[in-house]
Amino acid sequence: MPDPGALMAAEIAEQPAAWRRLSIEGRDQVRAAARRIADYAPRFVLFVARGTSDHAALYAKYLTEIVLQLPAGLVSPSTMTTYGSRPDLRQTLMIAVSQSGGSPDLIQSLQVARERGALTLAVTNQPSSPLAEVSELDLDIRAGEERAVAATKSYTTQLLALYLLLDAVRGGDGSATDGLPDLADQVIADNDQFVRLAERYRFASRLVSTGRGYSYPTAREAALKLMETSYLSAQAFSGADLLHGPLAMIDRQVPVLATVNDGHGGAAMLPVLSRLRDLGADVCCVGAGEAVRAASAGYALPGQVPEEVSPLLEIIPFQLLALHLSVARGSDPDAPRGLAKVTETL
Amino acid sequence: MPDPGALMAAEIAEQPAAWRRLSIEGRDQVRAAARRIADYAPRFVLFVARGTSDHAALYAKYLTEIVLQLPAGLVSPSTMTTYGSRPDLRQTLMIAVSQSGGSPDLIQSLQVARERGALTLAVTNQPSSPLAEVSELDLDIRAGEERAVAATKSYTTQLLALYLLLDAVRGGDGSATDGLPDLADQVIADNDQFVRLAERYRFASRLVSTGRGYSYPTAREAALKLMETSYLSAQAFSGADLLHGPLAMIDRQVPVLATVNDGHGGAAMLPVLSRLRDLGADVCCVGAGEAVRAASAGYALPGQVPEEVSPLLEIIPFQLLALHLSVARGSDPDAPRGLAKVTETL
Repeated sequence: MPDPGALMAAEIAEQPAAWRRLSIEGRDQVRAAARRIADYAPRFVLFVARGTSDHAALYAKYLTEIVLQLPAGLVSPSTMTTYGSRPDLRQTLMIAVSQSGGSPDLIQSLQVARERGALTLAVTNQPSSPLAEVSELDLDIRAGEERAVAATKSYTTQLLALYLLLDAVRGGDGSATDGLPDLADQVIADNDQFVRLAERYRFASRLVSTGRGYSYPTAREAALKLMETSYLSAQAFSGADLLHGPLAMIDRQVPVLATVNDGHGGAAMLPVLSRLRDLGADVCCVGAGEAVRAASAGYALPGQVPEEVSPLLEIIPFQLLALHLSVARGSDPDAPRGLAKVTETL
Repeated sequence: MPDPGALMAAEIAEQPAAWRRLSIEGRDQVRAAARRIADYAPRFVLFVARGTSDHAALYAKYLTEIVLQLPAGLVSPSTMTTYGSRPDLRQTLMIAVSQSGGSPDLIQSLQVARERGALTLAVTNQPSSPLAEVSELDLDIRAGEERAVAATKSYTTQLLALYLLLDAVRGGDGSATDGLPDLADQVIADNDQFVRLAERYRFASRLVSTGRGYSYPTAREAALKLMETSYLSAQAFSGADLLHGPLAMIDRQVPVLATVNDGHGGAAMLPVLSRLRDLGADVCCVGAGEAVRAASAGYALPGQVPEEVSPLLEIIPFQLLALHLSVARGSDPDAPRGLAKVTETL
């Protein structure tokens, strides 16, 4: 019997190597796809994804809106599958994100999009998957086989692939990501800190996760990791939405995980943190050193990276927290109850 | 001292009258806005909103994708405010939804959208609000002054205004909504049933809310109402996403609120309900009679309405549940801790 969480731990640790591999081996594929997209000159970008991959898509939606200055949307797959919508998608780039490339609803959505005039791109970990087959373009995240049920390395390589692609569309060379693998190695080497952090939240039954801008997808993914491995209720809100209603349910028994980056999103979190402090809430902060020092607990990320690539790094502390919290509670994150690796929905 | 929740109860009960008023008094404004939109012939539709209004926007996104067959997106306001994005929005309709019309981030987003070529529309309860002022078109939901902190009548009149508008854009006359006020009166007259349902969930500390398609916004809004009035952790997932991870946290102590309509979305929920039954979960179902009878508890909606307008009706049982649950727990939903009526975020 392997240790509980051995698969998840191994895949968390593989991330820096997977990023290095994608940056080198994926370069030509990224460039070719970016050229095709630039030639197509989309007016609108749609994303379709589910679960963890949907958080990578949300990150890419921010990049699209901010970096490419194009309007973007996340498609509800049911509109094209359950409701049979056949929208006019000329001048539209539609990107499907999926680890397995096997979800029937994503395959059907991409097929419909292609028939309706969209340029289609599949970002998967399976270049021979049905999703990659139906798509005009595909991008292989090269994460290696993912065996853990809780996705970790496929998530951050999806983020990297989407960043490299959209940066290349605007003519960038992806160099903002150069220092990330070394910094990730440093975070992973701090493993013991997350064992201790997990002890702090050993008996929490519910928590709230929050972030703004580029860090909002991190808040969403952190909540999902904790739910699927540790069975606690973890709710994610953008820092702004948190002030619209959900704040009422926060008291001293509901810890708040806050992702606070070094940039605009992190700055916009400061009033949220101050409001939480007024309420006496327990805040566990990941990210910028100053915010971490002012919080109840947390982890200051090493180095300083451009905000638009910080989501790759800032999710790792939460992956490690989810792993150790699950084990501390006597569960096995590699065998969560009720879950299968590939989920088929129509 | 008024009874706890007196304001919220009064505004829930006002909904049928508010819908009748909007259908009659708002007709010319809806038609004029629809004509302008049809002439503009948008290729894309963007929505910007926060909190409860964001759930109305999500409903309108489904309508846009399915009924108007146009791609749509929900804008993250921070991209235009915090990050200063100035996207190309020609041929784009941008709709802001806000009860007060006073949120600075929505005002700024709509201003930017207008400068960047979008046709702008503000759906508010305050025709003289700054949001309505900066917008080219505006639609007054005519809900009357909303005094309760938990939005109820403004939510369903937003749904109605958006339905009437988008239906008129496709040439419809809104007649699918004709029977709704009388049916809503019937639901409200069943008030005692929701007092009893609240007793059932008196000691729950967390729950999950789910629905698919048109009913997914209902699931989101139901969760928000329960959080802001009853301080429990209520998480909403589309039925499809629920199977991707969050299912692991559901056990017999985590009740599931399922919205199951009579149409495609409800049919797509049946495999989710069957999976939940296999797990032994407590399911409280609102909607179609057959699904309600097969559930642990719930409320069968009267009448039969087209699926695309069912969200107006199906949220009312959850509004009443939130009201009575809050009171049963000794709180006052009219004075939730930590919340103000207008939230200002930038």
